[in-house]
Amino acid sequence: MKKIKVGILGCTGSVGQKLVRLLSSHSLFEISELAASESSAGKKYGDVVRWLESEEMSDRIANLVIKQCTNDLESKILFSALDASVAGEIESMLAENGYIIISNSKNHRMDSDVPLVIPEVNTSHLKLIHIQKRKGKGFIVTNPNCSTIVLSLALIPIYRSFGLKRVIVTTMQAISGAGYPGVASLDILGNIIPYIENEEEKIETEILKIFGNMENDSIKFADFKVSALCNRVPVRDGHLMSISFETEQKAKEEEILASIYEFNQKCKEENGLTVLHYMLEKGRPQPLLDVNRSGGMAVTVGNLRKCSVLDWKFTALGHNTIRGAAGAAIKNAEYLLKMGLI
Amino acid sequence: MKKIKVGILGCTGSVGQKLVRLLSSHSLFEISELAASESSAGKKYGDVVRWLESEEMSDRIANLVIKQCTNDLESKILFSALDASVAGEIESMLAENGYIIISNSKNHRMDSDVPLVIPEVNTSHLKLIHIQKRKGKGFIVTNPNCSTIVLSLALIPIYRSFGLKRVIVTTMQAISGAGYPGVASLDILGNIIPYIENEEEKIETEILKIFGNMENDSIKFADFKVSALCNRVPVRDGHLMSISFETEQKAKEEEILASIYEFNQKCKEENGLTVLHYMLEKGRPQPLLDVNRSGGMAVTVGNLRKCSVLDWKFTALGHNTIRGAAGAAIKNAEYLLKMGLI
Amino acid sequence: MKKIKVGILGCTGSVGQKLVRLLSSHSLFEISELAASESSAGKKYGDVVRWLESEEMSDRIANLVIKQCTNDLESKILFSALDASVAGEIESMLAENGYIIISNSKNHRMDSDVPLVIPEVNTSHLKLIHIQKRKGKGFIVTNPNCSTIVLSLALIPIYRSFGLKRVIVTTMQAISGAGYPGVASLDILGNIIPYIENEEEKIETEILKIFGNMENDSIKFADFKVSALCNRVPVRDGHLMSISFETEQKAKEEEILASIYEFNQKCKEENGLTVLHYMLEKGRPQPLLDVNRSGGMAVTVGNLRKCSVLDWKFTALGHNTIRGAAGAAIKNAEYLLKMGLI
Amino acid sequence: MKKIKVGILGCTGSVGQKLVRLLSSHSLFEISELAASESSAGKKYGDVVRWLESEEMSDRIANLVIKQCTNDLESKILFSALDASVAGEIESMLAENGYIIISNSKNHRMDSDVPLVIPEVNTSHLKLIHIQKRKGKGFIVTNPNCSTIVLSLALIPIYRSFGLKRVIVTTMQAISGAGYPGVASLDILGNIIPYIENEEEKIETEILKIFGNMENDSIKFADFKVSALCNRVPVRDGHLMSISFETEQKAKEEEILASIYEFNQKCKEENGLTVLHYMLEKGRPQPLLDVNRSGGMAVTVGNLRKCSVLDWKFTALGHNTIRGAAGAAIKNAEYLLKMGLI
Repeated sequence: MKKIKVGILGCTGSVGQKLVRLLSSHSLFEISELAASESSAGKKYGDVVRWLESEEMSDRIANLVIKQCTNDLESKILFSALDASVAGEIESMLAENGYIIISNSKNHRMDSDVPLVIPEVNTSHLKLIHIQKRKGKGFIVTNPNCSTIVLSLALIPIYRSFGLKRVIVTTMQAISGAGYPGVASLDILGNIIPYIENEEEKIETEILKIFGNMENDSIKFADFKVSALCNRVPVRDGHLMSISFETEQKAKEEEILASIYEFNQKCKEENGLTVLHYMLEKGRPQPLLDVNRSGGMAVTVGNLRKCSVLDWKFTALGHNTIRGAAGAAIKNAEYLLKMGLI
Repeated sequence: MKKIKVGILGCTGSVGQKLVRLLSSHSLFEISELAASESSAGKKYGDVVRWLESEEMSDRIANLVIKQCTNDLESKILFSALDASVAGEIESMLAENGYIIISNSKNHRMDSDVPLVIPEVNTSHLKLIHIQKRKGKGFIVTNPNCSTIVLSLALIPIYRSFGLKRVIVTTMQAISGAGYPGVASLDILGNIIPYIENEEEKIETEILKIFGNMENDSIKFADFKVSALCNRVPVRDGHLMSISFETEQKAKEEEILASIYEFNQKCKEENGLTVLHYMLEKGRPQPLLDVNRSGGMAVTVGNLRKCSVLDWKFTALGHNTIRGAAGAAIKNAEYLLKMGLI
Repeated sequence: MKKIKVGILGCTGSVGQKLVRLLSSHSLFEISELAASESSAGKKYGDVVRWLESEEMSDRIANLVIKQCTNDLESKILFSALDASVAGEIESMLAENGYIIISNSKNHRMDSDVPLVIPEVNTSHLKLIHIQKRKGKGFIVTNPNCSTIVLSLALIPIYRSFGLKRVIVTTMQAISGAGYPGVASLDILGNIIPYIENEEEKIETEILKIFGNMENDSIKFADFKVSALCNRVPVRDGHLMSISFETEQKAKEEEILASIYEFNQKCKEENGLTVLHYMLEKGRPQPLLDVNRSGGMAVTVGNLRKCSVLDWKFTALGHNTIRGAAGAAIKNAEYLLKMGLI
Repeated sequence: MKKIKVGILGCTGSVGQKLVRLLSSHSLFEISELAASESSAGKKYGDVVRWLESEEMSDRIANLVIKQCTNDLESKILFSALDASVAGEIESMLAENGYIIISNSKNHRMDSDVPLVIPEVNTSHLKLIHIQKRKGKGFIVTNPNCSTIVLSLALIPIYRSFGLKRVIVTTMQAISGAGYPGVASLDILGNIIPYIENEEEKIETEILKIFGNMENDSIKFADFKVSALCNRVPVRDGHLMSISFETEQKAKEEEILASIYEFNQKCKEENGLTVLHYMLEKGRPQPLLDVNRSGGMAVTVGNLRKCSVLDWKFTALGHNTIRGAAGAAIKNAEYLLKMGLI
C-alpha cells in the first residue's frame, strides 16, 4: 500500500521531534513536509533542530527544507505540535483552507465543534468533524493534555462499568513534559516543584468532555467532579499518578479489576496492543520500569486498594510524550484513516 | 546551668546519628551514653558508625564506647531510635526499670497509655505518663511517624478553627526516610516508587490519636477521615505533600490563612521559632529550597486553592529526619523538661 | 539450525539477569539450565530473582528450577556470572570436569593459561584453550572488566597503527556496574564517589594482557603504561572515560580518526554491527544518548584533541553491563562457536 | 568598626546573588549599591531577581533599587560578577574612572597588568596594581576560574615543595557552575556532558600565571605542563577532580602529605580557617559530604596514590560558586583591605 503523505507543523520542538521520529518508520504515513516558524523556514531540518531523540535521524529527514505554516503546504494531512502562542490561529486558518489538522496543541481542544479524542475512549465524538466541515473544507481533531490521557485511560473502564462521582488525582510529572530546554537542572535535580501552570485546570475540564456523550450535534459533558494536584519530579519520561475515586454504583475489588481487564482485552482484539495493564506486583507501576510498555502506548495501573475517604485508590502511569502527546496524535490519525475520514 | 545527661538507644542508624548530631551541641542535654545492638557494643562509636552527617563528629563522641540496651545504663533519660524489630520489648523493659524513654520508634505509638506527642499540638496527652507510672517507675513518650508530623502541623490550625471531615494526602517522600543503606540507587535514580510499606496505615491512624482529646484517663480519637497515598521520590531530605481537605464549618481562603498565621505566631511567642510558614510564592514550598527553615524544624505550606472535590487543597513540606524524627524526639524532651516532667 | 543448549551460573545477580535476558532471544544459544548458590537452588527462577530488566521474563524461564553449580549440570557450555567469592573454585572444578566456561568473573582473568578475550581485539589468545585442555577436559574463557573492555576498544586501533607509550584514563562509572542493591541512593544521588575498590588495578593490568601477543604458548604482555582514576557517578548505564594518551609513533589527527574508522569498517564487514563509532558532534558521546548504540555493544568515542601533557585526549563510552559484561561473554561464546571451538 | 560600603555589578546572576548573600552578613563590607544591566535598572532587587539561594534575602536588600553600571555609582569598591559579554568594557571604564574592581569575570584575568589572585597563593602579584594605577585612578583585581582555583590550591604545596613538571586533571563539574537557567534538566539528569566550552583552556593557562613569579614589573609564568579534560555532572555544588602529576624533585608519599599539612597550618594561623584539608577516609572527598567545609572555602583532597604514568594521583574538591567564585572575590577584597590597598 502506498503511504499517505503528511506534514508536521512545529517540527522543531520536543513533541514535534517525537512526531518526526515516530512517523519516520510508520507503516501508513510518510513525512513529506516539515513546517515551523519563520525563523527556521528555508533551512534544512538537520541543521536547525536540536535533536533530543536517542535514535538517529535519517538523512532524508535531515535534508528536508523546513517550510512555513501556510496554505502552500502540499500535504493534506498535517500533524500539529505548534506552540500554544500560535497554534490557535494557524490551525484555524489551515482547516478553513481544507487541511486536516491532527493537533496536539491545547488551543482548540475545548471548542464545541472540535473533537477531543482518545481512540480507545470516545471515537463517537468524531461526528463533530461534519459540523466543522459545514464551516470550511478541512477540520481539526485534537488529543488531550498528556496527564488527561493517562488519567482517562486509567478511569474509563471504571466509569463505564460503575460510573464516577468524584476523583482526586495527584500527578508526579516528568521533565520531558515541559519541552526543551524546559526545566532548569538547578530547579529540579533532587527536588520537586509542586506547581505546573494551567495543568490542573486542563485535567479537570478535558476529562469531562472526553467522557461526555454525543447528543444531537454536540457533546454533553460528563458530570462527575475531578480535582488535580500537579507536581514536577526529577524523572525523565512518564507521568505517575496517585488517584482516589468514588463510583456511582458501589463495586468490589474483583469487579473493578475485571472491568480493567475486559477493557484491555477489547482494545487488544481491535489493535493487538496492550492499552491498559494492571500490574500485580507491589510498588508498580514505576516510571523507569514500566513507561515503555507497548512502545510507550500502554497505560499501566496497580496497587488498587480501599480509600477511606472516597471508595478506592490506585496508581497509574503513562508515557507523557508518546501516549500523552505524539503517539496520541498518530493514533488519532490512524483511526481516522481506518474509518475513511481522511 | 548544668546539662542533663542522656543516652541514645539505636545510636548507629540514620535517626540515631541525627540524634547524636543534634544533641552534640544542645543547650540542655548532654550525651553521656550511646547504646546499640550486641554486635556494636564494646566498640568505639567512631569505629563502628558509618557517619552520614556532613558535620564532623567530635572526638569525645567518637571515643564513646557503645553499650548494650540494658538496665545497666546510667542515664535516666534515653532517646530511642531503635529498630522496630527490637524497640517494643527493650523500651518496655527499660521503662519498667525506671527509665524515661523518648522514642521515635513506632512500636508503642498506638498504645492506649503512651502519649504520641507533637509539642505544638497535643501536650495535654502527656497526662498519660501518670497512668504509665502506676505500672512501673519510668515511662515512654513517642513522637509520630515523619509524614504524620508534617501533615499534623499543616492541618492543626485548620482543624482547630474549622474542624475537619475528610483529608486526602499524597506524599512524595525523601530517600533519607528509609534509613541507610535503605533505597538502592538503581531503584530510585530518575524514578518514583509508589509504595512505602505500612506508611499509609501509620498516617491514617496516628493523626486521629494526635488530634484526639484527653477524656478522663484516655484519649478520644478525632473522627474525621484520612486517606494517604505514599510515594518514594529521588529527593534527599524533605517529605512533600499534596493535600485536599474538607472542613466541618465552611471557611474562606483568608480565614484559613489567618488560622495558619495565628497558630504560627502563638508558637513563635512560646519558642521563638517559626513552626508553620505559609509561602506566598507560586510553586513553593520545595524540598530543596525550604526544607531547612528553622533548622529543619519548620513545616512550610503554600498554594492554597479551591478543590472541586473536597473544599481546599494545598502543599506541605517538612524535614523528615529532623522535624519528622530526631528533632521531634528532642522537642518532646525539651517540653518534658520545661514542664518538670523529667 | 538447532540452538545450542547453555546454562548460566550465578543467574540471579545483575549480570546473571542480563545474560538471561540477552540469551532468551538469542539466535544460536538456548538457556536450558540456570544455576546459583545453594540458597536459591530448588526454587523456581521467577520466584527467587528480583528482576531488574524492564523487558518481561518469559514463562518458560520463570518456571526453570534453579540448580546448584555442580557437575550434575547437563549443558556442556556454561556462562558464568558468579560472584568473585566463589567463582574461582567452581569454575576450575567445572572446567576440570569437562565443561566449557564462558566467564565474566574476575578470578581467572589473569591466569597464564586462560584467555582474556575481546573478539574484535585478541582472538589469537584463544590458543591458550589447548594448553588448558592438556590439564583437563574443559576450559575457561574470560572477558575483561567492564571498564577495561571500553578502554581497550577505544584504544586498539590507535595501538595497532601507532603504538602506545602512556595512557591516563579517568572513568565515570554507572551505578549498574555495582550490581544490586549495590550503591545506596543516599551515597550517590547528586554526588560522586571517587573510589571503586580494585577497579584501577584491574584496568591497569588487564589491558596489557589483552593487547599482548601470543608467543609460543604464552602471552607476552604489552608494555605501555596505563594509569586509571575511577569514579562512581549518578548515571544508570554507561561508563564514560576521559582519556589522554601518548603514541609510539607520532600521528596526525586525521590519521588517528582514520585508524578508528578503518577498524570499525573491518568489524562491520565481519559482524554487520558498529563496534567503535567516532561522533563528530561536540560534547558527545554522552551516556544517556549514546549508550545503547548497536544494542549496547558499540563503544562510542569523540572530541579528539591535542593534549599538552601526553599527545592526544578524547572521550569514550560503553555500556557496562552489555558491552562490558553479559554481551561481552556472549560475544566470546559466539566467536568460539563460529571457530568450531565449542 | 564602620563597614566599608561596596557595590555589586551583575547582581542578578547566580554569582551576583552569591555575592549578595555572602556580603549581606559580612563583618567588613556592607552592600550599599546593586548594579546590573539596563533592563533591570530602576527596579527593586527583590522584584527582579530570581533568587536561587535558600537563605532568605533581607528586606533592605530586596528594596534596593538596581542602578546601571556607570560611573555614577557611589561605592568606590565594586565587586563584579558581570557577564563576560559586557564585563571587559565596563570594568575597564570604571577602573579608569577611579573605581576598584574586584572581579570574578574572565575578561581581564590574563591582562599583563591585572593580578589574577588567590590570596593563599600569589599575593605578590598585587604589585601589578601600581602599574595599573599609572594608567588610571582605579584598578582591577581578578580571581581565577572556579576549576583553576580548586586545582591551584590542591597543587600549590606540592609545587612549592617539589616543583611540578606535568599535570593531567579530569574535572567533574557541578551544574551551578553554568549559572541559571544554565544546563537543561533533560541534558543532565542521569547523564554526563563531556564538554564545557573554553573551560580546558582557562584551566591550562590561568594556573601558570597564578603560579608565576613577579619579576620586575611583570609576571613570569610557571612553565610546567597542564592538560585538563572537563565534564559536567549531575551534582549541584562542587567541582571534583581526578589529578595526576609529576614533580620536578621526586617526593615520597609522606613528604607530599606533609607539604599539604604544613601549607594548611600556615593558612590556618593567618586566617583561622582550614583552606586545604587532606581526608584520610577512602572514597573522599565527595561533593555531597565535603563541599561546605569552612563555609565552602576549603578545598579538600584525598586518596593520594602512585600513578604509573606520572608520579602521583589524587582527588580534589572545592565549592565552585563559593571558593571558586563569589567567596574568592570576597577573599581578595579582604586581603586588599588588610594590606591597606583599598
